[in-house]
Amino acid sequence: MGDKIPVGILGATGAVGQNYIFLLQDHPWFEVTYVAASPRSAGKPYREVVESRWLLGANVPEGVRDLVIEDANDPSKAVGKCRFVFSALELDSKDEIKALENSYAALGIPVVSNASAHRWTDDVPMLIPEINADHVAVIDAQKKAHGWDKGFVAVKPNCSLQSYMTPIWALMKAGYEVKRMFVTTLQAVSGAGYPGVPSLDMIDNVVPYIGGEEEKSEKEPLKIFGSLADGKIVNAAGPLVAAHCNRVPVINGHTACVSLEFGEKKPSLAEVEKIWTEFRGLPQELGLPFAPKQPIIVRHEPNRPQPRRDRDEDKGMAVSVGRLRDCPLFDIRFVGLSHNTVRGAAGGGILNAELLKAKGYLA
Amino acid sequence: MGDKIPVGILGATGAVGQNYIFLLQDHPWFEVTYVAASPRSAGKPYREVVESRWLLGANVPEGVRDLVIEDANDPSKAVGKCRFVFSALELDSKDEIKALENSYAALGIPVVSNASAHRWTDDVPMLIPEINADHVAVIDAQKKAHGWDKGFVAVKPNCSLQSYMTPIWALMKAGYEVKRMFVTTLQAVSGAGYPGVPSLDMIDNVVPYIGGEEEKSEKEPLKIFGSLADGKIVNAAGPLVAAHCNRVPVINGHTACVSLEFGEKKPSLAEVEKIWTEFRGLPQELGLPFAPKQPIIVRHEPNRPQPRRDRDEDKGMAVSVGRLRDCPLFDIRFVGLSHNTVRGAAGGGILNAELLKAKGYLA
Amino acid sequence: MGDKIPVGILGATGAVGQNYIFLLQDHPWFEVTYVAASPRSAGKPYREVVESRWLLGANVPEGVRDLVIEDANDPSKAVGKCRFVFSALELDSKDEIKALENSYAALGIPVVSNASAHRWTDDVPMLIPEINADHVAVIDAQKKAHGWDKGFVAVKPNCSLQSYMTPIWALMKAGYEVKRMFVTTLQAVSGAGYPGVPSLDMIDNVVPYIGGEEEKSEKEPLKIFGSLADGKIVNAAGPLVAAHCNRVPVINGHTACVSLEFGEKKPSLAEVEKIWTEFRGLPQELGLPFAPKQPIIVRHEPNRPQPRRDRDEDKGMAVSVGRLRDCPLFDIRFVGLSHNTVRGAAGGGILNAELLKAKGYLA
Amino acid sequence: MGDKIPVGILGATGAVGQNYIFLLQDHPWFEVTYVAASPRSAGKPYREVVESRWLLGANVPEGVRDLVIEDANDPSKAVGKCRFVFSALELDSKDEIKALENSYAALGIPVVSNASAHRWTDDVPMLIPEINADHVAVIDAQKKAHGWDKGFVAVKPNCSLQSYMTPIWALMKAGYEVKRMFVTTLQAVSGAGYPGVPSLDMIDNVVPYIGGEEEKSEKEPLKIFGSLADGKIVNAAGPLVAAHCNRVPVINGHTACVSLEFGEKKPSLAEVEKIWTEFRGLPQELGLPFAPKQPIIVRHEPNRPQPRRDRDEDKGMAVSVGRLRDCPLFDIRFVGLSHNTVRGAAGGGILNAELLKAKGYLA
Repeated sequence: MGDKIPVGILGATGAVGQNYIFLLQDHPWFEVTYVAASPRSAGKPYREVVESRWLLGANVPEGVRDLVIEDANDPSKAVGKCRFVFSALELDSKDEIKALENSYAALGIPVVSNASAHRWTDDVPMLIPEINADHVAVIDAQKKAHGWDKGFVAVKPNCSLQSYMTPIWALMKAGYEVKRMFVTTLQAVSGAGYPGVPSLDMIDNVVPYIGGEEEKSEKEPLKIFGSLADGKIVNAAGPLVAAHCNRVPVINGHTACVSLEFGEKKPSLAEVEKIWTEFRGLPQELGLPFAPKQPIIVRHEPNRPQPRRDRDEDKGMAVSVGRLRDCPLFDIRFVGLSHNTVRGAAGGGILNAELLKAKGYLA
Repeated sequence: MGDKIPVGILGATGAVGQNYIFLLQDHPWFEVTYVAASPRSAGKPYREVVESRWLLGANVPEGVRDLVIEDANDPSKAVGKCRFVFSALELDSKDEIKALENSYAALGIPVVSNASAHRWTDDVPMLIPEINADHVAVIDAQKKAHGWDKGFVAVKPNCSLQSYMTPIWALMKAGYEVKRMFVTTLQAVSGAGYPGVPSLDMIDNVVPYIGGEEEKSEKEPLKIFGSLADGKIVNAAGPLVAAHCNRVPVINGHTACVSLEFGEKKPSLAEVEKIWTEFRGLPQELGLPFAPKQPIIVRHEPNRPQPRRDRDEDKGMAVSVGRLRDCPLFDIRFVGLSHNTVRGAAGGGILNAELLKAKGYLA
Repeated sequence: MGDKIPVGILGATGAVGQNYIFLLQDHPWFEVTYVAASPRSAGKPYREVVESRWLLGANVPEGVRDLVIEDANDPSKAVGKCRFVFSALELDSKDEIKALENSYAALGIPVVSNASAHRWTDDVPMLIPEINADHVAVIDAQKKAHGWDKGFVAVKPNCSLQSYMTPIWALMKAGYEVKRMFVTTLQAVSGAGYPGVPSLDMIDNVVPYIGGEEEKSEKEPLKIFGSLADGKIVNAAGPLVAAHCNRVPVINGHTACVSLEFGEKKPSLAEVEKIWTEFRGLPQELGLPFAPKQPIIVRHEPNRPQPRRDRDEDKGMAVSVGRLRDCPLFDIRFVGLSHNTVRGAAGGGILNAELLKAKGYLA
Repeated sequence: MGDKIPVGILGATGAVGQNYIFLLQDHPWFEVTYVAASPRSAGKPYREVVESRWLLGANVPEGVRDLVIEDANDPSKAVGKCRFVFSALELDSKDEIKALENSYAALGIPVVSNASAHRWTDDVPMLIPEINADHVAVIDAQKKAHGWDKGFVAVKPNCSLQSYMTPIWALMKAGYEVKRMFVTTLQAVSGAGYPGVPSLDMIDNVVPYIGGEEEKSEKEPLKIFGSLADGKIVNAAGPLVAAHCNRVPVINGHTACVSLEFGEKKPSLAEVEKIWTEFRGLPQELGLPFAPKQPIIVRHEPNRPQPRRDRDEDKGMAVSVGRLRDCPLFDIRFVGLSHNTVRGAAGGGILNAELLKAKGYLA
């Protein structure tokens, strides 16, 4: 235990924070030693605050239940108690989150963030390790610009993108330009946190709208697929995306119906399947603890993937795809699915931290 | 009562049959006097057979509960007991349904069908009365070809189309060609009948597949938008459609996420809204009993339409649209919603019959 | 319209308030002319405040959507604008609700309340009109004690009781003492208001607890079955009740599993069914607009009543009972069901007001 | 692997059969080498038959997916291929199941059964290993009566009992007679198999009836708590039970609301909690692989246990209890919960087999 890196969770009492704590139990490299939340919860044992709204199985994990919550707004409290933090901050203002995450970095505490605040800061990498692990290098420029020694900020993209970004990247990496894509998502309620979506909206109903989600889905791929230049990440020119995002009565697992239009060069369906099945990224090469062995699982049943059946594949870190077929308007269509609170949130954040450690940014 | 036209229901014990019986209570023109189902149910009181699986409110309607079920496979039984039939037949073979529906027609009993068997018979009209009421005229050729006097067959299209066909038609009618469209549906379980979709597939889950549904969604619009020539309906050349159909845990109400690409001439969002709001079809002009006063209801809330809130608009016969906005890839996008067992099934069939009566085909 | 009594709704924007407004559309005696809510909403058009969280069908009712919301904490605003109010106040403190309801009464505005604050005030009647319409007389003493001229307060009991109280009363009225009863409820989420129960607690889950509900279920029957003496309502001695209350993923309709122990004299199952079927109360005799024609509907299917199939019986005002059978420990058991937001809340409140008007207390 | 006992699954393609196969992956003592089902499936690879309706996670387990299904009606096929069988037979007639299970036993193949057919055969033990492990001894008389050498039949009780039988037994074992009990269950849909309960009955609904379930709940405890005499199990005299069983929209986990009446000697709530927390049975003493470490988990949150949060405790084999409090009519009340397809079905069957092996009946 003494050999593990002590880590902190900012926003530890919220839904994403709970997921970090749940998933970090028995992590081989990291150990949660510090939990911070709003001033309202500060000073109380973690257990006491979350017990009545604990979302993940029966019990608050042993190692964390008796930690005393600190005030997340006071970064100085974290100094000496953890070597980096996962940020699941849920403040009203993105500017406040940015400033607060920067304060942690300034104190020498790297921030691996789930929050959307810094996603468009051009020297902050927005990582999906199978896709753009090379973006990590922008951190050097970030540190230099701020005059930070050890601290920095790295973020992950929006949860629902994970259900299709890796499959699309695998095709791009194999030489097939993806020019345009239509995507319609059917998203789980856990994505809205707790209490989140009222049951009066989700029994015998769907809600064809999630605030800000379509904008993120259309914009974030361009940065993720972007390239490094002059200490900044320069957006890719494509693919152009039209997204329609829906909330459905599912606990976990975002489903996405996708149509892709390729450039001149178009793969056959058999090639697509082969590319997906054989795809491996840097996390797989490095053998990172949270890396799924097979990042993309291709299903052949006519009615899969389905959230309840497929979301937990490879501990919730794999993307399942199915229904691969020709598209009458574009080139191919398929259904993608990933676990939104694991691959799409806390699990993705942990994989980012593992990548950063493997690259020497977290010591 | 004596003035009403006596009608029969084929497949009266199934889900669609039950809907016909439910909706025809107190109909001003039609009265259910005849119920037919499989030989297994024949000879029993209607009540006795359906009571334990009655789907629509608490009780089997009064006028019908004591009717004795006849064998639907024997059209001769219907002669003299009803002047036309609604067909909700659910036989395994489409050829059997075709043959059986033809037998009724041959005996002078018009068939207003919900079954898909005759949808591609080129002298059988596939009607959405607000769109293609003129297709009724093909019945004359149909009668002549078969040598039928009074009998004929008319059908309605697949249920999920109804959530977007009228809005698209309204734009076409206003002079805007619709060249291509993407549609992703989130469809209610009632569309699969009873017992239909197992609850083990619908609690905390969605199923991204409905057998045959995408093919119907891509093909049927071409006939509906087609034109009459030489006693046949000739398919339209467009729009080209790519459909992705999903089953979601909703009782009633099919939701559709739609993107449209227009031809050269493109309406503004304001024009689209005006066209939809002002659209009226022949059922509205004729004041047919089941015609919604306003066929297309435009909603302005950011998160509507929703199935539970909007499906019952104008007794389940109106189509609700919302989230009208620009599409980054095509021209516009929107969400359409209609009640799949009313507008999309029995209610649509009844409106077809009303149109046929108004045009003199049912006497 | 000019002949209808103008009424106000306190707490008009909440779930119960919305139900009052929904149910009072086209009421033959009452017309909503006044809506009041928290100071935060005051001054805004009703439509504007509730539109994005309207719970009952597609649209905010016409007559009310443009009313300007007044501050419910200022009873003087209501003077001259309505002749009585329905209270659906949701303040944190019961004492504040009591004081505020009394203030309206003091200003000559009778309060027909859905709130629980005054349920245990001994000169305030807690009415189920089919059971204890005679308790209305305690209002005279109430007025005298306070020195009120026209104003007074009357309340209704907790929603879940309605699923079994009338059936039990019918047996008591027929001469069968009910000594003890076990009841386990399966309650709908609408009972918790909006946003109410999070969907993360209600998808693939039940919650075996509703705060305060078991206490109310065990205590309120004693007052409802009580008698008048010296200007007060004196509790009945029985039945003794043990209640277990659960929240289940149902939109509307509270289901109750009940076992009853009679006194010496015990009815046969056939007698119980006859008593229930023939039971009528004062609302039925008076022909009150919201009175169900048959207050207790006995079902014979083995698997009924069910919330979705039976809750809307007689516009949601009837109680459905089924599964009547012997109990191995007590005497009989059955399942009772009623619509919690209609019979159990706003509809019950309206029936109370109709009774009060019929008895001359609302002019 | 060679050291594990080869076992067969009868009814391997159904829901319970799938659960056995899922749970026996990596079992330290047993290995599935034989799968049998209806003649319709015989001859096909297991994978092929179940793939499209596999209920447990994404994939059919590796070791079993390529086994060829045999005809379960032909016991001779099993000889030499497995040393005992788990029976999850789902034939229409209980007599047929009895006869078939006996045929396996007669061929020297012990049957550890999930079927209800033999539950009332007086020399067949109905086991909950924590409660009546001593009933195993009746197998000697059973073998003798039939003239069987190695073969025999042992069964487990109905699934929903498991949510409260161990807690009740713990109190009885501690010297507190339980005279009478009321129990109302809220049962998961997986208990009805697949396709099982239609989603049209489970969205926005509960069904207050499960065929035969109440009778089993009232009768089976008497045999489980019974004693051995003259080679038979003699029923206990009590407790007397009144059960009300409901189906609710939950995937897994049966919840039970229980009230208990003790004899003369009554424990305090503190004593009850202490007894439950400290309770251990023979499976715990023997350290059987599927034995939960703590058979009864007492929860203190006001709103627990809940199916989604608590069903998986100790791999689904523990019973969770909560809401322990006084009962106004009987003595105590509480909520019990167990995983119906693990503790209540396949997991319980496996624990029975482990007990039988530990006692030398399976070699």
